[in-house]
Amino acid sequence: MKFVVMTLFPDMIRQAASHSVLGRAVEKGLIGLEAVDIRDYSTNNYHSVDDYPFGGGAGMVMQAEPVYACYADIKEKILTTEAPVILMSPGGRRFDQKIAWELSGHEEIVLLCGHYEGIDQRVIDEIVTDEISIGDYVLTGGELPAMVIMDTVSRLVEGVLGNSESAQEESFSGMWLEYPQYSRPRVFRDREVPEVLTGGNHAAIRKWRLQKAMEKTLERRPDLIDEGAMTKEEAGIFKELKNRL
Amino acid sequence: MKFVVMTLFPDMIRQAASHSVLGRAVEKGLIGLEAVDIRDYSTNNYHSVDDYPFGGGAGMVMQAEPVYACYADIKEKILTTEAPVILMSPGGRRFDQKIAWELSGHEEIVLLCGHYEGIDQRVIDEIVTDEISIGDYVLTGGELPAMVIMDTVSRLVEGVLGNSESAQEESFSGMWLEYPQYSRPRVFRDREVPEVLTGGNHAAIRKWRLQKAMEKTLERRPDLIDEGAMTKEEAGIFKELKNRL
Repeated sequence: MKFVVMTLFPDMIRQAASHSVLGRAVEKGLIGLEAVDIRDYSTNNYHSVDDYPFGGGAGMVMQAEPVYACYADIKEKILTTEAPVILMSPGGRRFDQKIAWELSGHEEIVLLCGHYEGIDQRVIDEIVTDEISIGDYVLTGGELPAMVIMDTVSRLVEGVLGNSESAQEESFSGMWLEYPQYSRPRVFRDREVPEVLTGGNHAAIRKWRLQKAMEKTLERRPDLIDEGAMTKEEAGIFKELKNRL
Repeated sequence: MKFVVMTLFPDMIRQAASHSVLGRAVEKGLIGLEAVDIRDYSTNNYHSVDDYPFGGGAGMVMQAEPVYACYADIKEKILTTEAPVILMSPGGRRFDQKIAWELSGHEEIVLLCGHYEGIDQRVIDEIVTDEISIGDYVLTGGELPAMVIMDTVSRLVEGVLGNSESAQEESFSGMWLEYPQYSRPRVFRDREVPEVLTGGNHAAIRKWRLQKAMEKTLERRPDLIDEGAMTKEEAGIFKELKNRL
């Protein structure tokens, strides 16, 4: 799978890809990543890519022509498939794990990062096939959202996570927040590890963890709970828990 | 305002702060940023800070002791106020612009980035005062969420954005998605700039933009619309628009 990022800050994207899971995946050749500088497609001598908005108002708008020329060049030289072109935008579909799975099915994805007060609408109409928002907050540009999407989607690509990492994720049905974790030492500032975790009874440990995950989810994010999607084990423990509360 | 980030990837945080609005704000001395490496507080010769979870299971857990020692050192050497300690966590409060305003009122904020399969719950109980999630998706660690929060909150700190940038944000009441923008040239690939924007009638332009913002919000994110919070101007145009649809 390959990401192609259209951006005014290619170094920010490249640096992010030198760390952590995404960095390892790029190194292993499991994920391709190219950050293409929109500024290289400026049509003037000042290397500027923004101009005043028609109709007035504060701020500058990214012009259609350099963005279009950048995409045309990517299409000619990099892409080998009909890759989606995704604009990072507060008005886009709200990114979640389901959309991450959907995106992980593409061989290539183009991510377009805006800046200034926006991008000329005509080039959006011309090249963008999807708009995604990572949340309801105002960011300076599309680079952090692009990094969030690349991190989340990469984790779903086969081979990117080690076996032990991916196994953990699939231990429950996925609708629950994480259960609490404990590691050595057994006593930390007078706080002991819960007894069940040191007892070696694996069925009891599994049940305790699931209960804790359910309690936390009920308290903080009841909207995530979907009784129809529970496994039989989960449904049983969930019923017990609700009777107790 | 100062951010102190507790992380295993301090370079990732520092690099992000060398770009864009956050970078400029740090340079101008409006925002302070320190990335503190939790690994420096390892208590063993291998510089490791993670260990197997009690109760078994895949993955490794960040241990309580180095995280606690790191925080104690930050408290002694860096903090001058009772700063909140915020864990980046999928189970936290969902970050939005309102929480960003709330955070922008603090002089100092500590952001704790987890990794591996989690952090020993006892150190969370001991030092963390708040948990925040940037969205319902699974990321590799807390670094990208911390960067998202710093970018969003910094923009709200006085002086960080130029006058022209901040003026733009406040032109409407804030519940609307962005209206479309256009810049030169007047015709791009047979697409013309909407006539109203080149006519010079400022009242007509303002109304057109508000209508476009409303149409987009109605179509994509009706959940953002709060009729009670509209200005009189907005309420009038909104009524007109709904009658038309």
